[in-house]
Amino acid sequence: MPVGTRGTVRTQTLGQLEALGAPMLLANTFHLLQRPGAEVLERMGGLHRWMGWRGAILTDSGGFQLFSLAHAHTLGEDGATFQEVADGPRVVLTPERSIAMQRAIGSDVMMVLDHCVPATASHGEAEAAMALTHRWARRSLAARGDSPQQVFAIVQGARYPALRRASADALTAIDGFDGFAIGGLAVGEARAEREDLTELTAALLPADRPRYLMGVGTPLDILEAVHRGVDMFDCILPTAWAQHGRAFTAAGKVDLRQGRHRLVDEPLDPSCPCQACARHSRSYLHHLVKCQEPLGWQLLAEHNLRFYVRLMAELRTAIRNDTFAALLAARRQTLAQVAA
Amino acid sequence: MPVGTRGTVRTQTLGQLEALGAPMLLANTFHLLQRPGAEVLERMGGLHRWMGWRGAILTDSGGFQLFSLAHAHTLGEDGATFQEVADGPRVVLTPERSIAMQRAIGSDVMMVLDHCVPATASHGEAEAAMALTHRWARRSLAARGDSPQQVFAIVQGARYPALRRASADALTAIDGFDGFAIGGLAVGEARAEREDLTELTAALLPADRPRYLMGVGTPLDILEAVHRGVDMFDCILPTAWAQHGRAFTAAGKVDLRQGRHRLVDEPLDPSCPCQACARHSRSYLHHLVKCQEPLGWQLLAEHNLRFYVRLMAELRTAIRNDTFAALLAARRQTLAQVAA
Repeated sequence: MPVGTRGTVRTQTLGQLEALGAPMLLANTFHLLQRPGAEVLERMGGLHRWMGWRGAILTDSGGFQLFSLAHAHTLGEDGATFQEVADGPRVVLTPERSIAMQRAIGSDVMMVLDHCVPATASHGEAEAAMALTHRWARRSLAARGDSPQQVFAIVQGARYPALRRASADALTAIDGFDGFAIGGLAVGEARAEREDLTELTAALLPADRPRYLMGVGTPLDILEAVHRGVDMFDCILPTAWAQHGRAFTAAGKVDLRQGRHRLVDEPLDPSCPCQACARHSRSYLHHLVKCQEPLGWQLLAEHNLRFYVRLMAELRTAIRNDTFAALLAARRQTLAQVAA
Repeated sequence: MPVGTRGTVRTQTLGQLEALGAPMLLANTFHLLQRPGAEVLERMGGLHRWMGWRGAILTDSGGFQLFSLAHAHTLGEDGATFQEVADGPRVVLTPERSIAMQRAIGSDVMMVLDHCVPATASHGEAEAAMALTHRWARRSLAARGDSPQQVFAIVQGARYPALRRASADALTAIDGFDGFAIGGLAVGEARAEREDLTELTAALLPADRPRYLMGVGTPLDILEAVHRGVDMFDCILPTAWAQHGRAFTAAGKVDLRQGRHRLVDEPLDPSCPCQACARHSRSYLHHLVKCQEPLGWQLLAEHNLRFYVRLMAELRTAIRNDTFAALLAARRQTLAQVAA
């Protein structure tokens, strides 16, 4: 899922998004509550209609902001109150309020409000956050009401295998979730630890419902997680890298800020059909990036999103053809270079 | 001509530019000398090939920077030396060096280096700048060599009708210019004065060659200048307004930063075929602008460029059909509201 935090995948027009072919976008409840707020989304008929996107939308609940804005909120059993910040008003998030906003947004998949803690959390902190996440999961499910929108639960438990097992068991025992996410990873832990926890957790989730690894990751991270049973991902890297002049290519990471591209009359990635590769040279892209021209960001975002979408298509095809093991062996090396 | 100062019309992809249908872009010799410099353009086969633009390109000579960067250069008979600035190296501009760079760029129309002075220039200053402009025009023409690129002269003379007449007479007496520009306007003078000087000057320029009013202007400015015999224009307003959330529409100027658009589920301009109007509401565009999302800038730039291109098409059609007088009478009122 390309990330469209505020109801726009940064720099991409609808035409570009449609050509990209990603079936689902991610939007963020916290940021949409800040701006434009629930009233606009309700009166404009929901996010799909408002932004003009005909594909699917998954909304994060705002739980990740309990981690990323840890110093800007107060937390209680009922929910979290975020301070007013420069670019947005005060936001109060409870499980019910998050789901109400996600109903106003009209996303296809709503996430339960969860309490995401950093990788450094103690066992006691992790256990408390997990238990709160479970109580909030039940309240979120109850708040769904008669909405046809799907609801996914989120497994927490930080770096503690026993807590991850307990969380997966507790949430899968609740009737009514349409899918399950693995939350609280990619928040500071080592790669090997993340992969082990992903493997352990994914194996405990029902095979007949989607498994979603939140906020992950590099192409290699995704390959390894698919290998461990994950079906869905969201990641900001394609658009965030583009903003800084960095591109994913089949031959590895390319930093277009570097002067060595100044006179390179070759495409960024000859195998890629995007506008940046089909119509421009590295020399021209380097110039756009050096001048901080918005077109550079736009073109590289389209390119990087295509890289991800093509990778996912490659993985799906391999799974269907029962050739995933061979693909894994072949791609582990090449993808390790992409985001090294 | 949409303005593509650094070899990109800010925020617009080639696909958008091609769909726009403008036959010619403007690029800037001074800024392209700063970055990427002559070597890149020579080795990449010129600006058309490097940026991928199949239409025509006119290059400003750098003369306008003698006005806009007045405190950052030293001037002599030979040319101007610009100080190193934060976003670019030291640039030396002489008539020969400007033409050499424009040959490296490979523009379809090269402008002579001229000395543009502010509207506050005294008669003595204006006369000296005009005389220097004439000497530089001859040197620029000589520097063209065997290039097939066209060269346009630039009439100067500031706010002094007698100087404008002298400048037009002196330049049209030189054999070899493919077109004539009216320079040194839109630099601080009143609208009525600009219109009078445009009328006076345009009448002295040959009817069989293009007349180009540099750096003008609002839709009404363009209407009034066409009425006075001008054929060509460049203007930064469509893209510059877009960056600040402002749009040109048939019904007048629209400032999308204003909160009154928050709940308006109507297109920006129902008569416009651009992506912003065809697929988005004012409510959504307002959100993008408020969040400073680059997509807002992109969409409004496309919209504003289309507004200008459609206006020019309307003017051409009226001239061909001999209905310009009626159009002028009808549009003077409506266009006055557009950039009021």
